[in-house]
Amino acid sequence: MENRKYFDAIFHPRTLAVVGAPQERPLGWPGIFGCIRDYGYPGRLYPINPRVTHVEGVRSYPDLVSVPEPIDLVIISVPAPAVPAALMDCVASGNRNVHIFTSGFNETGEEKGVELHRQILEIAHAGGLRVIGPNCMGVYVPKERLTTWVNPSRKDGPVAFVSQSGGHAQDFTGFASRLGIHFSKVVSYGNALTLDSTDFLEYLAGDPDTQIITMYLEGVKDGRRLLEVVSRINRTKPVIILKAGLTEAGTRAVASHTGSMAGGEHIWDAFFKMSGAVRVFSLEDMAHLTLAFRHLDTTGGNRIAVIGHGGGIAVSAADACSSAGLTIPPFSAETQEELRSFIPSSGNMIRNPVDAIPIFIDTANIQQMLDLASSELDIDMLMVSLSLDWIYDVDGGVHINRIAEYLAGHAREFVNGKPLVVTWRTYRNDPRIFDAGLRIERLLLESGIPVYRGFESATGALARWARYHRFIRERIPV
Amino acid sequence: MENRKYFDAIFHPRTLAVVGAPQERPLGWPGIFGCIRDYGYPGRLYPINPRVTHVEGVRSYPDLVSVPEPIDLVIISVPAPAVPAALMDCVASGNRNVHIFTSGFNETGEEKGVELHRQILEIAHAGGLRVIGPNCMGVYVPKERLTTWVNPSRKDGPVAFVSQSGGHAQDFTGFASRLGIHFSKVVSYGNALTLDSTDFLEYLAGDPDTQIITMYLEGVKDGRRLLEVVSRINRTKPVIILKAGLTEAGTRAVASHTGSMAGGEHIWDAFFKMSGAVRVFSLEDMAHLTLAFRHLDTTGGNRIAVIGHGGGIAVSAADACSSAGLTIPPFSAETQEELRSFIPSSGNMIRNPVDAIPIFIDTANIQQMLDLASSELDIDMLMVSLSLDWIYDVDGGVHINRIAEYLAGHAREFVNGKPLVVTWRTYRNDPRIFDAGLRIERLLLESGIPVYRGFESATGALARWARYHRFIRERIPV
Repeated sequence: MENRKYFDAIFHPRTLAVVGAPQERPLGWPGIFGCIRDYGYPGRLYPINPRVTHVEGVRSYPDLVSVPEPIDLVIISVPAPAVPAALMDCVASGNRNVHIFTSGFNETGEEKGVELHRQILEIAHAGGLRVIGPNCMGVYVPKERLTTWVNPSRKDGPVAFVSQSGGHAQDFTGFASRLGIHFSKVVSYGNALTLDSTDFLEYLAGDPDTQIITMYLEGVKDGRRLLEVVSRINRTKPVIILKAGLTEAGTRAVASHTGSMAGGEHIWDAFFKMSGAVRVFSLEDMAHLTLAFRHLDTTGGNRIAVIGHGGGIAVSAADACSSAGLTIPPFSAETQEELRSFIPSSGNMIRNPVDAIPIFIDTANIQQMLDLASSELDIDMLMVSLSLDWIYDVDGGVHINRIAEYLAGHAREFVNGKPLVVTWRTYRNDPRIFDAGLRIERLLLESGIPVYRGFESATGALARWARYHRFIRERIPV
Repeated sequence: MENRKYFDAIFHPRTLAVVGAPQERPLGWPGIFGCIRDYGYPGRLYPINPRVTHVEGVRSYPDLVSVPEPIDLVIISVPAPAVPAALMDCVASGNRNVHIFTSGFNETGEEKGVELHRQILEIAHAGGLRVIGPNCMGVYVPKERLTTWVNPSRKDGPVAFVSQSGGHAQDFTGFASRLGIHFSKVVSYGNALTLDSTDFLEYLAGDPDTQIITMYLEGVKDGRRLLEVVSRINRTKPVIILKAGLTEAGTRAVASHTGSMAGGEHIWDAFFKMSGAVRVFSLEDMAHLTLAFRHLDTTGGNRIAVIGHGGGIAVSAADACSSAGLTIPPFSAETQEELRSFIPSSGNMIRNPVDAIPIFIDTANIQQMLDLASSELDIDMLMVSLSLDWIYDVDGGVHINRIAEYLAGHAREFVNGKPLVVTWRTYRNDPRIFDAGLRIERLLLESGIPVYRGFESATGALARWARYHRFIRERIPV
């Protein structure tokens, strides 16, 4: 990739300039200059503001041409009518990597904005600028202490996020951090004046810090190229995509948001089928899929054993698995017989799904259960389903901790190498039980076991995760 | 309904007997006798236990025949093999209203259980018993201080729940109470030996305390009768049904759980179409629908205005509305022009969905927004969408409270009588923001405004709520 060095500069900048850094922080928000400083960016940071000599104690320059060294990434944060002049300053100073934060262009659908869009496009093309935006949050790279927003996670991890929306970039990374999902590189690119999702994708394909790629797309300029790039990358780095604007109202909203053409639903159905990209339907859904890819290795199939307690809940689990596309084969007669040796028939279900409170009274029973279920040839993966309200009543939460510690610890020695996930729920209005759930989440996530609230999120994630591995296996000879 | 007086006795019992009340409370659970006492049942409660003279200080009787007065509801909690004798005691003593808590019958699929099922069915039929169960939790009536489980809500309300699962009865009522949904009568009826869902429905149709009926069904014995009864009741009391076991795995699980035949998916599709019953897909979904019916009056259509802030979120809202079956018509040119007078074009969307942080900076702006949107002829209902992470940053939560108080208070004077719901979300991992969300929920629910976390739950609920009203309107001449 010939452009690699430019993208290296964008994502690992040693110098930054903020055009339009204000002398005073705006009310209720530190501003981009403030955010970059607060997050602890260690490179050289230049405020550009012709009306002041210093911004937050840092010497300010009237324009980019006056700055004594080349700038790896220029961030433009002046009102829309002043953006063309700022871009010309970029061209004049030879700084070609630009993030335009400002909005008010073609996405407004109004004459003035459309005309400004035409102007900046012309300047960018003529000057050979590489523009992220306008109308977006730009770049977040925790490893480089680089961000444009308030207090994102400081941890870095193997997930990249290419997001057309700046709000989603902040929301998704925040939500994901609760699940222990951290990021290599995040870019929000808004109206995609020159750089589009595919450009970032090509760079991330070769990025050693990135193993999983998540995307939020409103529109795309070159669909054929996106298909080609995603199909190629997806073989080694799963590409998980939230495609917005596929409904009538969504199409209109996308046009108002980033001035994008959403594209038809049939085209996108075909895109997902052909590329094997993993399709998600909300930010939460995207986080749940990422969690599965983050911690689970691979699978030979989609057959699941569900181990829980509560009959109605077991029925719900079975329906949720089937609806999502997982199958729940009944255990063999031999396994059912062994289960009957420590699970009485009255009030318990042992065929799969399993509904048996005795299993959860003693960790030795969980162990035997996991061992038996995972030894079944017809089972590819295991889900433990915890209704905390019920276990809490046993002894006010002590036992919940014991189960959590077992599942986070020794359990994986007894699953015959098969994937294990845990789901939990509480319906009772008791903050102590909810807190017990949060502790379980922490323990399991720290030990690399995906944990979900409720079934739907888990079954949906597992089914698509398994489908991805089938796609990769069948399409690509190993 | 000729059986009304028997059901009156079951749901408003002045006398109860618990057959098999143990001298000592079981480990980790108070037992049924203990639950009834702990909840403060004010009627006369008789323990039946031939091996002791007293249970928890209450005089015990060896059998029902020895009890000095008629029993409105006998609760049987002895091991399965002892149930036939207990039922014969009911027949001998002339106490015909029976709840069998015990499990271990045809749902086990094992010879012993199936034989016991045959025996108790024969005794019940021969003796004219009205049996709730076996394998269930029976009756919960907060107004009568009657329950068989640990510490349910003490508040009563206009919602009835007819649940084949005892676990779901506890889980759903617990979850619903967080949303301020309280119950008139709840019955969990398990294997449905003699009394089936339709019997309870017919009674609830005439119950003055019940305005909304929720149901969890695994199987049903007389589908034609259910269709007839639901179709009739649904005209005046919305019937909201979670039908389980419609997948292959779910069908098997239902057989193991309550020994029921789940029925085919096509039959149930037709059932919902013909009866107009509101179909839900999980306990959470059922609570979200109930919340809409509880607080919203009626609607002429399914056209919604979405008022929020954040562009990506606005696109998500539009997609969620469209996917659920709501339409989001663009506002008229006049309304858009009026909106532009206080919402700048840069960074804001005003066509519907609305993405405009200025609206949320000043409650006068929210008011003008609500007034303008609800004055549109093409708008039937309003959704305010709050991304708390963003509003929190304005001033650390003070403003969130101001918005919540306005929405819970004066807002309804400016919606032109149209339904208003609120959705909120936080993605940031900050307990203070989550707590602010909980405060909003409390305030709004107390003032009768449905509030939802995330869009999907809200749009799904509103779409089906609107569809119900359309069904009722078109099928029944007013």
